[in-house]
Amino acid sequence: MALVGKQTWEFTNGVYVQSTGTAVGPTEKEGPLSETFDYSFNNLHCDEENWELAERALMRKAIQICIDKSGKNTDDIDVFLAGDLLNQNITANFMAREIQRPFLCLFGACSTSMETTGVAASLIDNGYANIALAATSSHNSTAERQYRYPTEYGGQKPDTATFTVTGSGCLLLSREVASIRVKYATIGTVQDLGIKNPFDMGSAMAPAAAYTIVQHFKDTNTMPHDYDLIVTGDLSAVGAPICRQLVKDEGYDVSKVYDDCGLLIFDREHQKVFSGGSGCGCSAVVTYGHLFQEMNRGTYKRILVVATGALLSPTMIQQKESIPTIAHAVVFEST
Amino acid sequence: MALVGKQTWEFTNGVYVQSTGTAVGPTEKEGPLSETFDYSFNNLHCDEENWELAERALMRKAIQICIDKSGKNTDDIDVFLAGDLLNQNITANFMAREIQRPFLCLFGACSTSMETTGVAASLIDNGYANIALAATSSHNSTAERQYRYPTEYGGQKPDTATFTVTGSGCLLLSREVASIRVKYATIGTVQDLGIKNPFDMGSAMAPAAAYTIVQHFKDTNTMPHDYDLIVTGDLSAVGAPICRQLVKDEGYDVSKVYDDCGLLIFDREHQKVFSGGSGCGCSAVVTYGHLFQEMNRGTYKRILVVATGALLSPTMIQQKESIPTIAHAVVFEST
Repeated sequence: MALVGKQTWEFTNGVYVQSTGTAVGPTEKEGPLSETFDYSFNNLHCDEENWELAERALMRKAIQICIDKSGKNTDDIDVFLAGDLLNQNITANFMAREIQRPFLCLFGACSTSMETTGVAASLIDNGYANIALAATSSHNSTAERQYRYPTEYGGQKPDTATFTVTGSGCLLLSREVASIRVKYATIGTVQDLGIKNPFDMGSAMAPAAAYTIVQHFKDTNTMPHDYDLIVTGDLSAVGAPICRQLVKDEGYDVSKVYDDCGLLIFDREHQKVFSGGSGCGCSAVVTYGHLFQEMNRGTYKRILVVATGALLSPTMIQQKESIPTIAHAVVFEST
Repeated sequence: MALVGKQTWEFTNGVYVQSTGTAVGPTEKEGPLSETFDYSFNNLHCDEENWELAERALMRKAIQICIDKSGKNTDDIDVFLAGDLLNQNITANFMAREIQRPFLCLFGACSTSMETTGVAASLIDNGYANIALAATSSHNSTAERQYRYPTEYGGQKPDTATFTVTGSGCLLLSREVASIRVKYATIGTVQDLGIKNPFDMGSAMAPAAAYTIVQHFKDTNTMPHDYDLIVTGDLSAVGAPICRQLVKDEGYDVSKVYDDCGLLIFDREHQKVFSGGSGCGCSAVVTYGHLFQEMNRGTYKRILVVATGALLSPTMIQQKESIPTIAHAVVFEST
């Protein structure tokens, strides 16, 4: 049985990260993780004519770098899993048109990074694919326009707002032994505590992250100290403390090992990013860049990455609905 | 190895359809498959206040019926896979909020029925889940508004247009032996021959369907006569003949066994549905209703269902892009 506990998958045959690729925009390049990204564009348009093409350029670059680093060819990929924040997942779909490999599109808002990685690992672990590529992306200008206001409008934002990361991250998985192994994936359940404010995603998503973290501990019979780092995707300065507290209320104190990708990627003192970074790209570029580098350096041996997604819909907000949220978690281990 | 050929997954441990649920709107109820649906609403609003809630009512009803028929409880479900046509997949996400089970959202436009079924079967086959529920839906009024014009606008349509099915279908899979088995899934590759007209989805999707059908034959070393029926999701009167011809050009004559769910669900002589039915719900309600009934009656022993998705994006159409398409196929066998 590969199902551990109630909602965790164990990858028993060995699934390894062969290579990763990350590409970001200029604000991310100016942040504290600057040196950890494979590529950065020096302009928000990523040398393209519009924002959608800019986001696609990010994913294209991340994939290209990832495949190049792996020593494989695009044709070697048995399955491509991707998703993004845009309506109809156009970044993922149009990239799938370019790379012409069997394609599964997944949507988990900002939880898509670990959703695609978890499903990709399940396919590798069971021989449905020898090589799988998982990718996700977000772009500040495409996301803000679609979910809130076009950035050109210059609307004021409250301090609870997050700043959508302009970036794309991808990883290539296979059974070939490598330095980082994908060990578990905990599939989240939708949580909704009634938040209706699209400028406060951190508060909305914190319960989903806490739920998945606690369920992961229960399913795998582990404790916070079994991990060198437990990192959420994009809860930011508002959501991260809420998540920590909710997990504590359930009897698990993660405070010594807990952090958030949205807090790691920017310098909130010197960058105008409100409560921190968010977006599909946030957890992807931080994990596949910075965190994996630290694992390879020996800083971390075992990390739990909890990608957090607000399933925000402008249509539903107009209909006075609250925001359902979900979090999917993946355990990466140094071999 | 569970990967057969290049892009086909074989489910070797036995994955069976425990139960299905289908719910449709009034136009579908008036069509030739009327008696094969579990439930029909007599009004397009499905007794709800707006179209989005109407679509959600369809999926809720289909899921309720499916779970009831299976003799299981919602809590028994290890994983729920769903997707729909709406931005941010709101029907699926909000249903996941209701049923509170581990959730994977997939987006494949109208190919979502077989995308969710294929991935669900892979999870069952390898013990990541004992019971999986896969669902999809579409609603004529939500889809038309989002992708073309609100139906209230009363815009004229060309004959190449399809009529989005109002319906939701779901199925519950497990390893428990039952009358219908899920045997293979062939994961499609994005195809795009340059069609830009959102009123001609059939022509856009035909190459994707043909590609997946031909790849399935090659991967599994089968021929058209090995199937009692090969049915595409929603190519309609325009796309179906194109698909048949494209497959023939590759050396496979499917004409004796080929049909299309979009042609089966409506009576084009007497119903105003242009070139036929379309939408995620089309292949789902026809397959999980009519086709499975015919399998249980002995009419068909082995069918290949090729769900066809146009990854149409209004934003991309405005940017003069063509429409990428994809098709995922699943083989169902009588046991």
